[in-house]
Amino acid sequence: MSITLHSPLDMHLHLRDGEMLQTVAPLSSETFAGAIVMPNLVPPVTTKEELIGYKARIQEAIGNDTFTPYMTLFFKPTYTKAFLESVKDELTAIKLYPAGITTNSEGGVSGFDIEELRPTLEAMSELEIPLCIHGETNGFVMDREAEFVAIYEKLATAFPKLTIIMEHITTKASVEALDKFDNLYATITLHHLLITLDDVAGGMLQPHLFCKPIAKRPEDREALRKVALEAHPKVMFGSDSAPHPQHAKEACGCAAGVFTAPIALQVLADLFKQHSTIENLQKFVSDNAKKIYKHITVPKKIVTLEKKPFVVPAKYGNVIPMYAGETLKYSIA
Amino acid sequence: MSITLHSPLDMHLHLRDGEMLQTVAPLSSETFAGAIVMPNLVPPVTTKEELIGYKARIQEAIGNDTFTPYMTLFFKPTYTKAFLESVKDELTAIKLYPAGITTNSEGGVSGFDIEELRPTLEAMSELEIPLCIHGETNGFVMDREAEFVAIYEKLATAFPKLTIIMEHITTKASVEALDKFDNLYATITLHHLLITLDDVAGGMLQPHLFCKPIAKRPEDREALRKVALEAHPKVMFGSDSAPHPQHAKEACGCAAGVFTAPIALQVLADLFKQHSTIENLQKFVSDNAKKIYKHITVPKKIVTLEKKPFVVPAKYGNVIPMYAGETLKYSIA
Repeated sequence: MSITLHSPLDMHLHLRDGEMLQTVAPLSSETFAGAIVMPNLVPPVTTKEELIGYKARIQEAIGNDTFTPYMTLFFKPTYTKAFLESVKDELTAIKLYPAGITTNSEGGVSGFDIEELRPTLEAMSELEIPLCIHGETNGFVMDREAEFVAIYEKLATAFPKLTIIMEHITTKASVEALDKFDNLYATITLHHLLITLDDVAGGMLQPHLFCKPIAKRPEDREALRKVALEAHPKVMFGSDSAPHPQHAKEACGCAAGVFTAPIALQVLADLFKQHSTIENLQKFVSDNAKKIYKHITVPKKIVTLEKKPFVVPAKYGNVIPMYAGETLKYSIA
Repeated sequence: MSITLHSPLDMHLHLRDGEMLQTVAPLSSETFAGAIVMPNLVPPVTTKEELIGYKARIQEAIGNDTFTPYMTLFFKPTYTKAFLESVKDELTAIKLYPAGITTNSEGGVSGFDIEELRPTLEAMSELEIPLCIHGETNGFVMDREAEFVAIYEKLATAFPKLTIIMEHITTKASVEALDKFDNLYATITLHHLLITLDDVAGGMLQPHLFCKPIAKRPEDREALRKVALEAHPKVMFGSDSAPHPQHAKEACGCAAGVFTAPIALQVLADLFKQHSTIENLQKFVSDNAKKIYKHITVPKKIVTLEKKPFVVPAKYGNVIPMYAGETLKYSIA
């Protein structure tokens, strides 16, 4: 029996630029109708020109219009209301990185002084531009996200009309924050539904499963699975698929990121089937996102998954995907 | 001002065999007067012949008698009292591995049924052979050692005259167990005094700092530092220096182990100096061990450390040491 998905969306995606963009963009556009594209290029996307230029390069790499790249700017507390008004039509959201917390985030926010952030965040609130946040402090690696929940709560309270999306949540603490504030939402990745720190460092060290935020404890994964599998209306799928060339993952000092774009829907189908919640997958991978991001228009695209073995390629270009060489139960028809 | 150490001992050391033994044994014998040598070869050391043969190969690799390899057998619950009596003079301790918990531990103990273990452990107790334990359950990676404390306590209670050494402890929970039972002791490595999980996986992933037990939380490191720096009489230095060839550390699926033998005393001197506890270093690296392992004889050896920069080689043979290429503050004179 096949599974039909209408316009699946990936609400957190890294497409990079240049050669890597050419490799990975078609892999997302093949199975998704759109994706929120992260702005952490080198240098990050902070101007209207960069936004428009990057979007054009993505569209060129994809070569068709059945996939919409929802563009984002890299948050700066110096963005004025006038500037935001001028770019509003070119972007879908703004992504905030605490300074230095993950790949190419050096120019991010240090400290979360509400008054310093107020002009930009109030303007975003008025203009209905959602704020996506990589929510980690610079504390101990297993505590960083849980510590950041207080900052999410402070922002959600100070800007009650601002749509705040807790990106790639990995902890029970973040899941619990979801229901406390009307304006807090979350994306959840594929890999955080599947792995814990045990898979990264419990046996041999597995660089291809190393990501930020790092996979947490079994009870955290349980909390994530619960809201994803029930398609809690405030959560949506965001792969955080983050390609790095093989040498950067297997070197001493491996880069953070798991590449899941080409296998995400197949594995999600299997996971939701296993838990007898397949009827919720449509909401998790598309409908919830359309309600949360109420201004997006989504291309019509029907994706059919069938129960037929799919052998994951060892590499896509020079990027090693999650489950490289393994056989998945579901294929894209 | 130089620091003089009398007969420093490394109470937990991996010397491997073959070519690797040739590379690493002289690096330990240069600065230590003796070391407890782990038996987890492939296959593990379980017979008198293997014990004698391995000791002879170690002595040959060292080429002098100013370093004593204190030999160990790989624990089997099938060892009889008669067997233990026959090997008593050839060994210093017996090392117990839970099955499959670390490098080459597949033939270890599954379950800790006191009655199954009683004949061997009572014989060891009577013959005054210490039991060294790698104390980890097969639970979640951050909880494995803390979960094992209950097993340490069960063993310490059931065999009150048996000297039980909690090897390479990494947690506050193990430190706290030390003072609860007269017959529980511990070794502490250099790297667990220095790093937390943040250093392994908080920035980029660092395979050369990946070890088992994995480095834990800041408060765990604090608890370890406290008892090491005060030279608590029940703790002693054991490097757990564990060489792997570079390719096994940097591959996808990196092997566990940090290679510290050639730099351990230099870094310990710096750490104890920084904390104004240099007068305790002699106890931590030698005197405590002599009291805990009351039957060992220790070669006289004076090691002098001076405050003079030491650039750590990038490699010893094909093994990358901790602090490769970095400059340490202390050198062996």
